[in-house]
Amino acid sequence: MSFDFTPFLRDDLPPAAKPWGGFAEFNFVGGHVNAASVPGPSLVEALAKVMQRDGDRLGYYGLGHGSQGYLPLREYIAQMLAERTGMPTDPGEILITTGSLQGMDLVNDALLQPGDTVILEAVNYGGQLSRLRKLGVNYVGIEVDEDGMKMDALEDVLAAQKAAGAMAKYIYTIPTVQNPSATVMSLPRRQKMLDLAREYGIPIFEDDCYAELLWEGERPQTIRSLDDQGQVIYCGTFSKTIAPSLRTGYLVADWSVLSRLMPLKTDGGCGALEQMALAEYCPDNYANLVAGIRQILKGKCEAMAEALGEQFGAAAEFSMPKGGLYIWVTLPAEVDTDRLTKIAGEQGVAINPGSEWAADADYGRRRLRVCFGHPSKQEIRDGIARLAEICHAEFGVPLRGANVER
Amino acid sequence: MSFDFTPFLRDDLPPAAKPWGGFAEFNFVGGHVNAASVPGPSLVEALAKVMQRDGDRLGYYGLGHGSQGYLPLREYIAQMLAERTGMPTDPGEILITTGSLQGMDLVNDALLQPGDTVILEAVNYGGQLSRLRKLGVNYVGIEVDEDGMKMDALEDVLAAQKAAGAMAKYIYTIPTVQNPSATVMSLPRRQKMLDLAREYGIPIFEDDCYAELLWEGERPQTIRSLDDQGQVIYCGTFSKTIAPSLRTGYLVADWSVLSRLMPLKTDGGCGALEQMALAEYCPDNYANLVAGIRQILKGKCEAMAEALGEQFGAAAEFSMPKGGLYIWVTLPAEVDTDRLTKIAGEQGVAINPGSEWAADADYGRRRLRVCFGHPSKQEIRDGIARLAEICHAEFGVPLRGANVER
Repeated sequence: MSFDFTPFLRDDLPPAAKPWGGFAEFNFVGGHVNAASVPGPSLVEALAKVMQRDGDRLGYYGLGHGSQGYLPLREYIAQMLAERTGMPTDPGEILITTGSLQGMDLVNDALLQPGDTVILEAVNYGGQLSRLRKLGVNYVGIEVDEDGMKMDALEDVLAAQKAAGAMAKYIYTIPTVQNPSATVMSLPRRQKMLDLAREYGIPIFEDDCYAELLWEGERPQTIRSLDDQGQVIYCGTFSKTIAPSLRTGYLVADWSVLSRLMPLKTDGGCGALEQMALAEYCPDNYANLVAGIRQILKGKCEAMAEALGEQFGAAAEFSMPKGGLYIWVTLPAEVDTDRLTKIAGEQGVAINPGSEWAADADYGRRRLRVCFGHPSKQEIRDGIARLAEICHAEFGVPLRGANVER
Repeated sequence: MSFDFTPFLRDDLPPAAKPWGGFAEFNFVGGHVNAASVPGPSLVEALAKVMQRDGDRLGYYGLGHGSQGYLPLREYIAQMLAERTGMPTDPGEILITTGSLQGMDLVNDALLQPGDTVILEAVNYGGQLSRLRKLGVNYVGIEVDEDGMKMDALEDVLAAQKAAGAMAKYIYTIPTVQNPSATVMSLPRRQKMLDLAREYGIPIFEDDCYAELLWEGERPQTIRSLDDQGQVIYCGTFSKTIAPSLRTGYLVADWSVLSRLMPLKTDGGCGALEQMALAEYCPDNYANLVAGIRQILKGKCEAMAEALGEQFGAAAEFSMPKGGLYIWVTLPAEVDTDRLTKIAGEQGVAINPGSEWAADADYGRRRLRVCFGHPSKQEIRDGIARLAEICHAEFGVPLRGANVER
């Protein structure tokens, strides 16, 4: 007989986890990177060096640098952000987090209560949408075009909220290589968003996790770099460039805000080895590593776009990403991607259904997100072909694929 | 002009963090270990080996082993717990956490709501007491003697709660090397606690973080090892043996419970490098490492006890710890250790005030916890001498120290 824990658990717990069943044969989900690009041995070499110099610090909580994280890593991040995003940053304004997900949880925990509202891009990161729903927080989606969130639409929402006396708690934006649209917000729109935030007195939470994965040109200035009044909380990560398994991200905010977020991080700090390895590895190697990864990902992205074109033809609409890991695909109205996700999953093709990646789930229901970071080009071709077959069998589209009538 | 975040923050946030000011000259606080015992280079060597074999996994969330953590580490923990604590454990019943603190947060998050009650040892880990207060949860302290929590007192509380129709949500216990009393619960009491938990239908949360630091003899059987009905949730850590900065702990529970806790861990996993390094290092080295650490800590403990005896004489009452990192000291009634902590802190001696380490803060007010893990023996002698001087200057006790009338 087994003890029944049910009466002791909170009523509002999420559903139970399922036992891990491994990855799908064709893994087009999650923020997985190109595994062969992960510089595992170099990280270990870097760690060996820093260990000789600074190994005694392992004996201390926070490596003896307090609860914000290993100081040399914060110094590197500060310098990198200043150089690459035009955002002068003090190491004292940085909190190392367990991936940017923990940073997001801290911001949500500090700012949000049930019944609150967040404004965000209408297609969005599913992990943020699900977090907000779990918190009982409403969200209002703002349409995105190729220059990012539309500022006239944002202004309309802000004005309506002000008129109703029900302002949102913050604007959440992924301005550079937005997830899932892969759009990049133009500089004038960044400035306009900040102006509107000033006018309506509302904070901005800028999620910059994908900004290093822009194929061409420099990283745009961050919105926080335009802000001299501490109105923008910023997060970044090493997950999408070095490796998601490292779980090393960071929050940047003025001390007056960061000092309120820090007590909510109750886990006693982030892992020492990742922080030490990254602090030693990155200064000399990060820029080169990322430049190489961009080229690999761009090639995979092109392979994915070609495969979609070949297998789905005109049935698959998408804009070519300017960077990142994902293509956001619109299928004909008769396709229900919730159902497609389920059936394809059973046949070895894992995709993210659009309903989970859109503020309006109905809008997302004929859309899907596919990640090209992990699979090889051949796996991309084979997996998209199988997805097209499955979609045809279930929904009658696409009618033709690879020049063959189905 | 700076943007005012105050109106956007939850009303019930904890106070702002203070900027990190470094450790005190004499650091007798926290769960710091003997820094020189941390096997930094060996962990790096282990990591280099596992990286050759398994490095590709860095490209995957959860190292491709799902959200429970790196499978080889879970396999090692399962085997170690079976061998050393008599607790057969399946790797599928283990969740790797960011230190045991995250495990504690997950258990509290799943089981507790404001107004609930937890039963625990009357002197206790300050981090658990402060968590419970923050959650609006009441706690009832049960007296501890040299054999651990007193079972007659526990039975009285359970009976009274049952009669009042207000049962606690769980019994929290640190049975082996209790924090701060350093007592070890006897095997009959462990069995009795489980019997009472059965009789009253209440879960046990067993915190075994210090169990490897028992000076003499084998680790006792865990309470969970006596339980074949899944009524005990168990946590452990590598923080107190290998290094607190690694932030690698674990929860053990039957899948029916663990699967409800896992969705509350929303940070996308724990750091890969620690998990890989520990999985490779521990099987051949953990037992020897810990055996050496025990001897070092025992020596420091004796130095601390001698220094307390020499400097405080009969004014400092304490039982000799059976292991661990702390001595729990009772001073004369005229001493207020909240005040002593503040004044000593200003003069370079950091101690933990008993009011934060006792379910009844008043009971703790003439008591304090001192950690001997980090300082050298000389620092222990010098720091305790300074503490005695400060205590004498403020409270008039101890009257004599080091054979000198003050």
